[in-house]
Amino acid sequence: MSIVNNDFHKILTERHSVRRFDPSIKISHEEMNEILEETITAPSACNLQAWKFIVVDTKEGREKLHQYFMPFNFPQVDDSSAIVLFFGNTLAYKKYSQLWHTMYEEKKVTKQAMEAALNTFMPLYEKAPQEMLVADSMVDTSLAAMQFMLVAREHGYDTNAMAGYDAKKAAVVMGLDPKQYVPVMAIAIGKHDPKAEPEITTTRYPLSDLVDYE
Amino acid sequence: MSIVNNDFHKILTERHSVRRFDPSIKISHEEMNEILEETITAPSACNLQAWKFIVVDTKEGREKLHQYFMPFNFPQVDDSSAIVLFFGNTLAYKKYSQLWHTMYEEKKVTKQAMEAALNTFMPLYEKAPQEMLVADSMVDTSLAAMQFMLVAREHGYDTNAMAGYDAKKAAVVMGLDPKQYVPVMAIAIGKHDPKAEPEITTTRYPLSDLVDYE
Repeated sequence: MSIVNNDFHKILTERHSVRRFDPSIKISHEEMNEILEETITAPSACNLQAWKFIVVDTKEGREKLHQYFMPFNFPQVDDSSAIVLFFGNTLAYKKYSQLWHTMYEEKKVTKQAMEAALNTFMPLYEKAPQEMLVADSMVDTSLAAMQFMLVAREHGYDTNAMAGYDAKKAAVVMGLDPKQYVPVMAIAIGKHDPKAEPEITTTRYPLSDLVDYE
Repeated sequence: MSIVNNDFHKILTERHSVRRFDPSIKISHEEMNEILEETITAPSACNLQAWKFIVVDTKEGREKLHQYFMPFNFPQVDDSSAIVLFFGNTLAYKKYSQLWHTMYEEKKVTKQAMEAALNTFMPLYEKAPQEMLVADSMVDTSLAAMQFMLVAREHGYDTNAMAGYDAKKAAVVMGLDPKQYVPVMAIAIGKHDPKAEPEITTTRYPLSDLVDYE
């Protein structure tokens, strides 16, 4: 594992969005897979894992992103080591029965627990309205996205989460079925360009504006 | 700071959902505020910070949750140290101009950068359809929720993220305007009950099912 920083408090509090990347930094697919393996330890509703990742790190891939990203974000698209597209998978429940059978074979759950889970949750998902499947997959995928941004810091990289692209085009341009896959965000990963200006550190609202105790 | 574990890799990979909590464990409001201060270092779209937290740790507060949670989750509601309700705030943009003025006063941005950001983003939010404000606030709030679950581990606590409650009732029961505040998830926090059975560790799909390179 290529871990360069394992200080949780620093990883969390020193993460900032970086928009100007050093174009000479490459991330191997081996290391990207390590980063994504850690990313998918995130929890998800009913462990449905309703996420899908596309790692764009070729010239051809970046050109596709120019078709639906805002020109404002082209520097990150062009100069980052990779752009990881986070899509929600609204049909993740179709693999769910097989997942529980695997967990049963791995002796993580009893047959009774497996059957209870499948009998409880599968009918809910099979009858669920599309909006619910979209919302659930967006939440799951956002949890994974947050872990990705932190794992990137563990590996010594910076990130910039981007939205605001043309969401209607995102799946189609990337060759995915837009009914099944919902774009949640795109995250550029790489290292801050030492020749660029320092990035803005943003201000948070005071906690007292955001929290109530009951 | 009451940090008991600062090992990032362990925090990430040893986090598991815990459903049976030790009812004798209390978390002070001081420590909960420390946890939430770290939580809100999460990024958000345009730094809108479209999140709102209600920490439920009283008998009266837990009784309110019984009005809209599934009986399946009552053990967590009753025995955890607290249940933190994560709501998206669809009107976060109304505080946005003030935030940029604060950042300008703190000399984090120039007047030109402040005006450019406000002139670019404010009209988009003021004209945005409600679905976009809901979706954006759900993503922001999910990013914060993931950080909360990891920060909990830093402080030596376990968590269980819950959905599946009656989302239509959530804001109203908690005294919030349901047009403004969207329930995203609820997270029980505390320590695993040593008298309970070990929790299931769930299986993830293989990365090769989830990742494409472009």
